[in-house]
Amino acid sequence: MSHHQDSAHTEAHFGSSEVVRDVVIGMSDGLTVPFALAAGLSGVGASTHVVVIAGLAEIAAGSIAMGLGGYLASRGDSEHYASERRREEMEVVERTRDEEEEIYDIFEEYGVTRAESDPVLQALKRNPKAWVDFMMRFELGLEEPEVHRARQSAATIAISYIVGGLVPLVPYMVLDDNVRALAASVAITLVALAVFGAVKGRFTGAGVWRSGLQTVSIGGLAAAAAYALARLFHSH
Amino acid sequence: MSHHQDSAHTEAHFGSSEVVRDVVIGMSDGLTVPFALAAGLSGVGASTHVVVIAGLAEIAAGSIAMGLGGYLASRGDSEHYASERRREEMEVVERTRDEEEEIYDIFEEYGVTRAESDPVLQALKRNPKAWVDFMMRFELGLEEPEVHRARQSAATIAISYIVGGLVPLVPYMVLDDNVRALAASVAITLVALAVFGAVKGRFTGAGVWRSGLQTVSIGGLAAAAAYALARLFHSH
Repeated sequence: MSHHQDSAHTEAHFGSSEVVRDVVIGMSDGLTVPFALAAGLSGVGASTHVVVIAGLAEIAAGSIAMGLGGYLASRGDSEHYASERRREEMEVVERTRDEEEEIYDIFEEYGVTRAESDPVLQALKRNPKAWVDFMMRFELGLEEPEVHRARQSAATIAISYIVGGLVPLVPYMVLDDNVRALAASVAITLVALAVFGAVKGRFTGAGVWRSGLQTVSIGGLAAAAAYALARLFHSH
Repeated sequence: MSHHQDSAHTEAHFGSSEVVRDVVIGMSDGLTVPFALAAGLSGVGASTHVVVIAGLAEIAAGSIAMGLGGYLASRGDSEHYASERRREEMEVVERTRDEEEEIYDIFEEYGVTRAESDPVLQALKRNPKAWVDFMMRFELGLEEPEVHRARQSAATIAISYIVGGLVPLVPYMVLDDNVRALAASVAITLVALAVFGAVKGRFTGAGVWRSGLQTVSIGGLAAAAAYALARLFHSH
């Protein structure tokens, strides 16, 4: 594979990866937490009706907390970027000497002398907007957040959480016997976690088997802990 | 405030901000989701005993999902960094021409001509390690993740989730009457959300009042949604 194909591949991977990342964030918690809650409640003999109500309440709360919380966090990032940018715009005008020093400093970290980085500085000084762009990225390490990303990201996370969270609840909706419902819920959710982990591993490059094993382990551990804690507390 | 004080301030803020960020991540969900679940279950007349068991099961599941999930995500970032770094190390040796072009390309985005960026390239070529460092940061935008950060971050998030999640459950542990327990839980959790939001707003610079109002809104909305959904489903 030529290097340029490589770069193109990396960029394509990057574009889709924001949505994939949001689906992963929402679905990994959505498949895990309502599943574990249902297992914990079943462990103390709660009726399937109570398990479904608790599960739906959890899904409502979790999707709002993750979606709306994520939305507000993204909006905060945008505001942070805008305020840092205004500061840099002011500084290249009012503290030009300090900003020039910062350019030299950035390059000196990489063993580039002042004489060698000076032509770059002179070029940036011809174009104050480019200078500010350069400082935002290379001094502060900030990328401009996309405005409508925040809303789309919030919706993707929330919907993924809801879809993931409904999987372990289906057996409790269909069956009346909570022992059989628990068994069915554990079976389908572990399979769903394995499939989800494998797909995620393929997208992120972390490896299909390894990622599948990880998501199954997290989900299984969370459910086992919830089950054990519920029984322990119930017996007191 | 002088510019250098400003920079020092920014850096200090940045150092503490990783821990603050983890506390914020864990506690905002911890204060919200178990609270909303407890409200939803109270809405359908569940006993305080059931609410506490469901709440503890949720806290166990949520803290494991967020903590362990976060830990594995951080480890994934470290591995991604290491593999990209190996690729760059190989490329500066085997595809030197391509990598040189990439340096020119980076600077051309900022209106810096090839002649002006050439001295920087020549300096980087004297020191292949610095060249790779430069490409990691300025071509790929990747910072080297700290190794033990992942474990510390996971623990901070999980503990914050547990602490936050216990707040709304205390009234259900202390009181037998689920109506009074719900009222007390709503009161103390909304106060806790407001205080938490205000402190968070002070740390992140988002504004004390505005951040406090946001966390109260998310928590209140999640609890109201859980309550409404539980009642709706229960009445069918």
